[in-house]
Amino acid sequence: MFDSARDSLVFDTGHQTYVHKILTGRAEAFATLRQEGGLSGYPSRAESRHDLIENSHASTALSYADGLAKAAALRGTAGRRVVAVVGDGALTGGMSWEALNNLGAAPERPVVVVLNDNGRSYSPTVGGIARHLAALRAGSGGPTVFEDLGLAYLGPVDGHDTAAVEAALRAAAALERPVVVHCVTAKGKGYAPAEADDSDHMHTVGAIDPGTGRPVRPAAPTWTSVFGEEVTAIGAERPDVVCVTGAMRLPAGLGPFAQRFPQRVYDVGIAEQHAVTSAAGLALGGLHPVVAVYAAFLGRAVDQVLTDVALHRLPVTFVLDRAGITGPDGASHHGMWDASLLPVVPGLALAAPRDCARLRELLREAVATEDGPTALRYPKASVGPDIPALCRAGGCDVLREDPGARVLLVAVGPMARPCLEAAADLAADGVPTAVVDPRWCAPLPAGLCALAEDRDLVVAVEDTCVTGALGGRLAQALANRPRPPRVLTQALPPRFLPHAARPRLLAEAGLDAAGIARRVRRHLSG
Amino acid sequence: MFDSARDSLVFDTGHQTYVHKILTGRAEAFATLRQEGGLSGYPSRAESRHDLIENSHASTALSYADGLAKAAALRGTAGRRVVAVVGDGALTGGMSWEALNNLGAAPERPVVVVLNDNGRSYSPTVGGIARHLAALRAGSGGPTVFEDLGLAYLGPVDGHDTAAVEAALRAAAALERPVVVHCVTAKGKGYAPAEADDSDHMHTVGAIDPGTGRPVRPAAPTWTSVFGEEVTAIGAERPDVVCVTGAMRLPAGLGPFAQRFPQRVYDVGIAEQHAVTSAAGLALGGLHPVVAVYAAFLGRAVDQVLTDVALHRLPVTFVLDRAGITGPDGASHHGMWDASLLPVVPGLALAAPRDCARLRELLREAVATEDGPTALRYPKASVGPDIPALCRAGGCDVLREDPGARVLLVAVGPMARPCLEAAADLAADGVPTAVVDPRWCAPLPAGLCALAEDRDLVVAVEDTCVTGALGGRLAQALANRPRPPRVLTQALPPRFLPHAARPRLLAEAGLDAAGIARRVRRHLSG
Repeated sequence: MFDSARDSLVFDTGHQTYVHKILTGRAEAFATLRQEGGLSGYPSRAESRHDLIENSHASTALSYADGLAKAAALRGTAGRRVVAVVGDGALTGGMSWEALNNLGAAPERPVVVVLNDNGRSYSPTVGGIARHLAALRAGSGGPTVFEDLGLAYLGPVDGHDTAAVEAALRAAAALERPVVVHCVTAKGKGYAPAEADDSDHMHTVGAIDPGTGRPVRPAAPTWTSVFGEEVTAIGAERPDVVCVTGAMRLPAGLGPFAQRFPQRVYDVGIAEQHAVTSAAGLALGGLHPVVAVYAAFLGRAVDQVLTDVALHRLPVTFVLDRAGITGPDGASHHGMWDASLLPVVPGLALAAPRDCARLRELLREAVATEDGPTALRYPKASVGPDIPALCRAGGCDVLREDPGARVLLVAVGPMARPCLEAAADLAADGVPTAVVDPRWCAPLPAGLCALAEDRDLVVAVEDTCVTGALGGRLAQALANRPRPPRVLTQALPPRFLPHAARPRLLAEAGLDAAGIARRVRRHLSG
Repeated sequence: MFDSARDSLVFDTGHQTYVHKILTGRAEAFATLRQEGGLSGYPSRAESRHDLIENSHASTALSYADGLAKAAALRGTAGRRVVAVVGDGALTGGMSWEALNNLGAAPERPVVVVLNDNGRSYSPTVGGIARHLAALRAGSGGPTVFEDLGLAYLGPVDGHDTAAVEAALRAAAALERPVVVHCVTAKGKGYAPAEADDSDHMHTVGAIDPGTGRPVRPAAPTWTSVFGEEVTAIGAERPDVVCVTGAMRLPAGLGPFAQRFPQRVYDVGIAEQHAVTSAAGLALGGLHPVVAVYAAFLGRAVDQVLTDVALHRLPVTFVLDRAGITGPDGASHHGMWDASLLPVVPGLALAAPRDCARLRELLREAVATEDGPTALRYPKASVGPDIPALCRAGGCDVLREDPGARVLLVAVGPMARPCLEAAADLAADGVPTAVVDPRWCAPLPAGLCALAEDRDLVVAVEDTCVTGALGGRLAQALANRPRPPRVLTQALPPRFLPHAARPRLLAEAGLDAAGIARRVRRHLSG
């Protein structure tokens, strides 16, 4: 029906492109999916001219389609079709509605929307739209929300019946106006272990036994699982603590809390804007909400964090999972921006725990904060053994202090371990070194400048984008002083990074012990 | 029907609270509206316990209401009503739909939504929802989009008929489930000049003649009007240049462009997310979109700028009006965050013109950029005479260079004039001073460090939040060098600022000539 080299096919949430990849010349390479140097887990323009957008954040495809259709109309290339494939989950995101509002008012631009409705976001799709689609699936035959907005509607169609889908797409194209083709599908269809798994239909997996679908390696404790335990323990003590998630109940670690306090966890759909501002409403109503969200998706709600939460000094705690390098998910999913965006928010305190004990401790400090928002960030990784502090100084945990140390490493969050290893290496080499963990990385701890100002060299080590990182804010604060020390920021480079294993990408950015020690040595000798 | 001290009344886009203010004890103070020390132009918790949220960005009220209703249900205070008043324009913003999706699926939480439908956003409301509401206003009697999502619907009601509205609200409350009360109103009702003005019904005015509604003072050329002229001139040369606005065609300066090229300007509704990603689609389709948006609203689309535009290296130009201090609009409208957020975006170049000639010049450089996004920011103010450069050095315009200058002022955008005045004052006092305008403030111009490194003191002067400002990035870059100079950032403090006249707030932050000279003198003597 459509030709992906001529027509513009855009897929919402790139997971949906796996079959498209196989059909457009990437069948052989498919075994390299999500591995370093291999196929991306999302569409990729570098891979194929059949991939137009590299999106992976939900609810964007209809907006791209609206722009593409407007350009085609203006440039007279309207013969090229614009087709957007979206999941039902994406319709819980407001962006999709903004786009439908525009698509529906332009009968002269015949965008075809293929609604891949499997009833699931990651969690089952929630809200009025999910109920409406369920009624349509059941054949209620009533008018649809799409028609209210000015689009035509065709369906429901069995999305696994190729002939039926083809006929529906043909009918849709013949309409020559914006239209929604409602295809009903089943997540995991054809793979028995996925069909049988009602929790997430194996949305994402590591290496599994193909027969059983079970993981090959047992799961180690992760930052996510520690958060899940601790927020549940806090919930047992504090009836005012509630949790908010954007369709990420299980992957964000809220499973235990939801099981114990089902009335106190709110899945609002893939709707980060609403997650944040409804949390503001919960806080105004006397509760302390914990909004669990992936770091990479925080950019969806910056205005809401600023204006709806911080301007009102409301006690909302944001827990940012998948901060820093996420690994196989690649450019769109690395949580590289949150630690630059959040320090700009007045009155918001941002913490990065270095270990399991600190995650529990800082989460408790966050939910005990009553006069404004707080945030915690941690990576998608297993959490190693605890790293005890020698003492607390100026609000920071001192992790190492060699006598006469002229070099100070400011180790942010999980960078504590490689910093300590680098410090041991440097000390063995005759360079006495100190390591401190600021615990709260924004605003800067009151005593951090004092800890830094007498050194020859200060290196802030951070698994976030170098622009806007703590190192820059520390340099800015110290540059105010008469004789500022040299302050380096060892962080992720200011560009989009590819997919690869997390340790590999960290090492490439110099964020392992060897890289940190190398940077110090180069500057001491330079 | 409702008691604003007991029930939770939340108003979307605070302009709607003027009558509420008058009715809740602020009639006498009303003449001080939007003046320093006077009433806020939006709800304000400091003013009255009858004001619950200080929002002013559109489409937030339903999300607040959802959170408040959830809190009331959990805490057993459900006897207190939750009422949200929203305009039809707010329904073009995706957040409203995210909230309706949640409200509609919770029949047990009886939120009352009062839809104040005057058919206007700032510009007339656009899109499928506007057509749907128009059909309902015309008495089509069909099922409504609200009912599709699970809410009840009452209306349409004449919003100027007090008895009819009261009866409708009583009926809505009796339903004990989420319900939309559709009130039809006329913007400017009762004031003949506003009713007669079809452009914006006098949405916002300065001092006017009450009889005619005409401004008392003639309008001086503003940054906005210069942008409007230049983008129209560019449009005449470049058929691929198109403009996108979120319901702000006239206030964003797009009037002349729209008049000349009506097919090339897209009003997408109050929908910044869609504005940005549909612009990405336009760029993919071979056009160069100019997205004109208020700086304060950019936070609505940070993820879209990052992931949908920058990750794809698409040539989209953002023009950020009302950057810095806006004046009477206060905390929620000061454009204090954009210059901290945008430098984080890889591959995006951000410029701040210092005068009329530079605005034209930098806009042309921006739309000539083909390999990634660009942005310009300028304030809500009249633009003064041009400020010529002595020469160009290291990518910067050198505006003054006293022989032997040990002090360098880095003047960002409209701070050039006070910096030059401060430099003249310092020079007269025996402190030779240099002033440079970096033109593009992110990424840092290649030669700025070289211009700065041999000075005793560098002061970056910027009308934006100090956190994330150019001064910090310059300090970070210079701190890498063996003997970094002292780098001060003279910028807006990292907190929400009240409403007052722009020059007054700038002076309070030390961003006038006297404040800049004072800061330099204090550091030279300290």
